[in-house]
Amino acid sequence: MTHKRNIEELTETVQNSLDEKKYVQVRETLLDLEPFDIAYIMEDLPEDTIPVVFRLLPKELAAEVFVELEADSQEKLIRGFSRAELKEVLDELYLDDAVDIIEEMPANVVKRILATADPETRRDINNILQYPEDSTGSIMTTEYLDVKENMTVGDALKKIRRVGHDMETISVIYVLDRDRHLIGFVPLRTLLLAEEDETMDEIMDTNIISASTLDDQEQTARKFEKYDFLAMPVVDKENRLVGIVTIDDALDVLVEETTEDIERMAAITPSYKPYLSTGIMETVKSRLPWLMLLMVSATFTGQIISSFEDALASVTILTAYIPMLMDTGGNAGSQASVTIIRGISLDEISMKDIGKVVWKEMRVAVTVGAVLALLNFGKLMLVDRMIFHNPITVWVAAVICLTLVCTVFAAKLVGCTLPIIAKRMGFDPAVMASPFITTIVDAISLLIYFRFATALLHI
Amino acid sequence: MTHKRNIEELTETVQNSLDEKKYVQVRETLLDLEPFDIAYIMEDLPEDTIPVVFRLLPKELAAEVFVELEADSQEKLIRGFSRAELKEVLDELYLDDAVDIIEEMPANVVKRILATADPETRRDINNILQYPEDSTGSIMTTEYLDVKENMTVGDALKKIRRVGHDMETISVIYVLDRDRHLIGFVPLRTLLLAEEDETMDEIMDTNIISASTLDDQEQTARKFEKYDFLAMPVVDKENRLVGIVTIDDALDVLVEETTEDIERMAAITPSYKPYLSTGIMETVKSRLPWLMLLMVSATFTGQIISSFEDALASVTILTAYIPMLMDTGGNAGSQASVTIIRGISLDEISMKDIGKVVWKEMRVAVTVGAVLALLNFGKLMLVDRMIFHNPITVWVAAVICLTLVCTVFAAKLVGCTLPIIAKRMGFDPAVMASPFITTIVDAISLLIYFRFATALLHI
Repeated sequence: MTHKRNIEELTETVQNSLDEKKYVQVRETLLDLEPFDIAYIMEDLPEDTIPVVFRLLPKELAAEVFVELEADSQEKLIRGFSRAELKEVLDELYLDDAVDIIEEMPANVVKRILATADPETRRDINNILQYPEDSTGSIMTTEYLDVKENMTVGDALKKIRRVGHDMETISVIYVLDRDRHLIGFVPLRTLLLAEEDETMDEIMDTNIISASTLDDQEQTARKFEKYDFLAMPVVDKENRLVGIVTIDDALDVLVEETTEDIERMAAITPSYKPYLSTGIMETVKSRLPWLMLLMVSATFTGQIISSFEDALASVTILTAYIPMLMDTGGNAGSQASVTIIRGISLDEISMKDIGKVVWKEMRVAVTVGAVLALLNFGKLMLVDRMIFHNPITVWVAAVICLTLVCTVFAAKLVGCTLPIIAKRMGFDPAVMASPFITTIVDAISLLIYFRFATALLHI
Repeated sequence: MTHKRNIEELTETVQNSLDEKKYVQVRETLLDLEPFDIAYIMEDLPEDTIPVVFRLLPKELAAEVFVELEADSQEKLIRGFSRAELKEVLDELYLDDAVDIIEEMPANVVKRILATADPETRRDINNILQYPEDSTGSIMTTEYLDVKENMTVGDALKKIRRVGHDMETISVIYVLDRDRHLIGFVPLRTLLLAEEDETMDEIMDTNIISASTLDDQEQTARKFEKYDFLAMPVVDKENRLVGIVTIDDALDVLVEETTEDIERMAAITPSYKPYLSTGIMETVKSRLPWLMLLMVSATFTGQIISSFEDALASVTILTAYIPMLMDTGGNAGSQASVTIIRGISLDEISMKDIGKVVWKEMRVAVTVGAVLALLNFGKLMLVDRMIFHNPITVWVAAVICLTLVCTVFAAKLVGCTLPIIAKRMGFDPAVMASPFITTIVDAISLLIYFRFATALLHI
């Protein structure tokens, strides 16, 4: 029973057995584990022992472990495989897993894989590979179970027993007409609970929600969240069934797309690789261009300050409140933009809601801005003036607090509209998060600050 | 066939039919749709028509739609239900859905629900309600299918046909010994492919991965991502089966927890409600406290500037580069912190990796900082000095660029360590994202800036 396990301990056990060349023991330790855990342990072993351990596993399990390994380990294994070994692994893989692996590999490795695969698999793989990256076609599998409309429950169960071994999922069976048009589906559960002699068209559900091969994969994955499916059929333009997407792949897409959003929101180019296995230069490449871009745009903020140098020189205390105003503006704007970006991702907010969104953010901004300004006024007069002895007059405090209200208002407005506009223009709204909003709001808040300062302090 | 539909158009059709009191038409339009879509349409209808539409639906579908409605619509419906109606809906609900609904309702509505439920359901609901919020127990259902170890395949299939209707999922069947200890499981697919007279202990898989009732729900949900399960058994301390978690609930947990993380990262208290149905005051409450806290901490930054007022007054051009240094530092820190926070969420990074993480970020920081500083030096001398005629000497440029290198280094270091430390101390690492990192890095970058300025410019 492996129900409470400590992977770190197991890794050590395997390591020790390997050192002592007790291969039977290694095999036995690993046999009890899930493929994901075996892969995790293997990644932690010295590189040259990975092929050894891999060959100790029974071939079906080996294939499942192979899927869970990271791309560079997979590549190393493939390069080292004999032709027979590669074919064995390929034959055991589910089609969509094979496609996933091929997508990660360099061209010469792909050539080797395709040369080894049998003609039918090769055709299917090539078919799926033709769908654009991020399309539903690219994540589907063609290993589904289909039946004709006039088949009986008894015959369908027989067919399942006959071919079910090779199918990735048989939780749902698809009903096709003579021309392979998808006309209904039967959950396995319904099939089991039906009478032997009922036919498919009597028990099938015709309220089909399907995806099209060219639909965006994230859009398809979000449907799983809404509709609680275990699998979703994928059809071509003529509504002919070409594949299915299973919930485990949809889950992976959702996690991957969310990570992508989060990384974009922090001004990072998404990498799709676990942090610890990304190289230094790769990490630098995903971060540096954004920092450069944002650094250049911060120049404008600097120029605004330069042009008000005289005002700042005559009332030097104004400089001390620049960080507070810029930060509060940036934070207020990020709150709005991140909320809207997530709402767009989750399909809760669309273009048509822009009016509602702006109206709501305006009211929130006025409330938040007013409270912050009042608190700040009190703090300026009581703490900063009396305790820190900063040279703050009522007019200086007024300039700071009025700027605060206007900055929060502008920040919320910019923060809630830019993601929606980006989406409308076909960009990823996630780019319009903290870093960009902050840069824009910085400039706005400084302009407001100096306007109020020159007007109220007569400088 | 509803396969390509336009929900907005359908909402209008339903609205029009309602206005003309053509209820049969309304019913027919809705009958073809998925529960999620019907709920979506209902939320968009005038409030007083919701109960009308709800009563038009067949009772099983009505219950499924009820689950998909937002909490306030559910509450309104429950308050308006007759006792018989409430009982009908309750009887049709899956147990875990009923529990979810009850968790959202005010106490008097809960009382009404529990009073109407039959004694067995009431007992189960109360059982699940006792598990802490966010625990695995709180998302599990007790409607699973279990069999004894010596039962034959034929008998198991008979049992499924007999009781399968009431089970939320029958994709996996659990095998228990005499004392209800979980000893194995049989995927429905295996059961179908097995011989009639084989017994459960012959075909069951004993490599069980289970959750415990008190495990964190996110932790349990992440296991679905790793292991591609459709359902996971939940056991008590004695390894007795008490319930199962199904993949659709795990998916909901993952989406909800991710939204929570994203909101925390933007300094918002998570709300769990769709943006457009959150009230103004609720939104203000989730954002204002964080802005206040961050505003107060920005005061320190202001005090640093105040204390270097003389330095700034003698070389006024230094002020103009404060925003660029603060922003770049903030952005560099956010990139590191957000990457680490996501890595922690996805279980890719744990406490033991802190050394590797710091070492990696240090090397990234030196590379990024050096490139940014060089570029910036060129820009300062060529653009800012020659084109904008800012009074920049080589020494001023050196101060700015050295500060940039040190700030990026400090920012990456703070950004990558704080989330791990927060996690270690039992806090949510997501709080250690942009806003907090920015505030800390602001102060650090200013201190570095003024140190270099006083040292190199002799002020």
